[in-house]
Amino acid sequence: MPRILCVGALTLDTIFQLEQLPPGPGKYIPTLAVEIAAGMASSAAASIARLGGEVSLWASAGRDAVGDRIIAELSDEGVDCSHVRRMQRARSAFSSIFVDRAGERMIVPFYDPALLTVPDAMPHIENGVFDVIMTDVRWPGAAAMALAAAKSAEIPAILDADTAPLETLELLLPLATHIVASEPAAEKVTGEHNPENAVVALAACYGRDESFVAVTAGDKGSFWYDNATGTVCHMPAFNVRAVDTLAAGDVFHGAFAWGVAQGWQVDAIMRFASAAAAIKCMHFGGRRGAPSAAEVQAFLSARI
Amino acid sequence: MPRILCVGALTLDTIFQLEQLPPGPGKYIPTLAVEIAAGMASSAAASIARLGGEVSLWASAGRDAVGDRIIAELSDEGVDCSHVRRMQRARSAFSSIFVDRAGERMIVPFYDPALLTVPDAMPHIENGVFDVIMTDVRWPGAAAMALAAAKSAEIPAILDADTAPLETLELLLPLATHIVASEPAAEKVTGEHNPENAVVALAACYGRDESFVAVTAGDKGSFWYDNATGTVCHMPAFNVRAVDTLAAGDVFHGAFAWGVAQGWQVDAIMRFASAAAAIKCMHFGGRRGAPSAAEVQAFLSARI
Repeated sequence: MPRILCVGALTLDTIFQLEQLPPGPGKYIPTLAVEIAAGMASSAAASIARLGGEVSLWASAGRDAVGDRIIAELSDEGVDCSHVRRMQRARSAFSSIFVDRAGERMIVPFYDPALLTVPDAMPHIENGVFDVIMTDVRWPGAAAMALAAAKSAEIPAILDADTAPLETLELLLPLATHIVASEPAAEKVTGEHNPENAVVALAACYGRDESFVAVTAGDKGSFWYDNATGTVCHMPAFNVRAVDTLAAGDVFHGAFAWGVAQGWQVDAIMRFASAAAAIKCMHFGGRRGAPSAAEVQAFLSARI
Repeated sequence: MPRILCVGALTLDTIFQLEQLPPGPGKYIPTLAVEIAAGMASSAAASIARLGGEVSLWASAGRDAVGDRIIAELSDEGVDCSHVRRMQRARSAFSSIFVDRAGERMIVPFYDPALLTVPDAMPHIENGVFDVIMTDVRWPGAAAMALAAAKSAEIPAILDADTAPLETLELLLPLATHIVASEPAAEKVTGEHNPENAVVALAACYGRDESFVAVTAGDKGSFWYDNATGTVCHMPAFNVRAVDTLAAGDVFHGAFAWGVAQGWQVDAIMRFASAAAAIKCMHFGGRRGAPSAAEVQAFLSARI
């Protein structure tokens, strides 16, 4: 059983479904409300656990009620949280998110800067404890250490390159063996609005040592660069009735890391990850809709 | 030492301060964020405890992490939470609130309807355990029982009449000996937009048995009906630099109940409650800004 380490964000998300986003001051009654332990790397880790993977999380939380709660919840999901850094003088991160019927979102995240200090210790990566490392861009100091250690250990070093300050992206992108960038992040780094052009530009910058480079573009599907042929491959998004796209990218990245850990071919990995993300989008509540491996297989079997 | 029972809402509020309210979909970084055990009656109870009062809370919560947390927090504030009803199959209430620099708010509250079922037991009120009862409009079944029991026990039965369905207001208003209505609730019941007219109309309906009737109107101050002279009295709001008016009404009502329990004259009570609410408005974070009795006295001494 391959072991995966996810590195990055850990937050408590409170997600409200509303008929429409608040147009101004007032009181708005939600149709649904979900509280869930989330954050990019944490949602990916929980998604990997759902798929049946053995997964650990390296994240940073306060010694407070929110921290206790989100760690307990992820542990219940099967994520090993023993590497989570608990900080005495920091507040755990939390976000409030309003989602309308069309899936449009207002997000207000609270991150205590003290959570993001550079770690003075890290999980053992060099000695073969993990088979794949997956990091996000939310705790750059830890992500840089983990990606570098993964490269030294010659194991896949995956970066979920979502929007972040340009200096953070430019710090982390060269350290990864597998870059899966969101469309806005890819545009931020390359200046290319079209995701196909962005993947080519990213590959030109960061695909030198046979690194894998992809861009996910929501309902336009995902694009990746084929080093062997010098072409861009495209996996269309599955056509589902989306009620909530929140955390779809995190579920995609978790499933991607899972596929890499299994040693699958890249087109199989991208198809699997797209299916996992599509299934998630059919359920309200962020990562709560992340599927099991059997659900993904059933979804894919029905679409061959 | 008089004992006060507060009856009604108990929620976990997450309050974000933003430069401006979100104008549409997107991610918005707050300047401050506070999580706090709140809800009208609970905030009033915590304010009474800050003032030095002996106060109990009768509210309804789920048997979940949010419930544990908010009860622990109010207990730490000195509120007796032994009467809080914990329900196995209900989720505790929570709200997310965005506040801009001008104090304008977007509020999205989540209330599980299961929390609001009519209670099948109530705290002992009839036998002189409490000296004053203060209820809000958020748990009408419990408020009706408590107000009726208070009237039988011939102790003050205060109603914080904030906006609620008209049937709830019309259920509770006749049961109270002291009505302190918000401006919108008073308008909803009487049709009168002007708070001075609204207080006259409310007194005509509900002030028969020498009941006390007041309307609070934010920075326009508060108005009450003097049964002896048939006139409306006015307490102007104190002129302070308000940064957050959230829970100002709850702090007012807590201080009002405290003054009633002390047996003060009505004008002294209204002045004290106005001062407590004004001090609260100078601090961000909802009821977190509720003052001690010494702070209110110092504030008033500086303004004589």
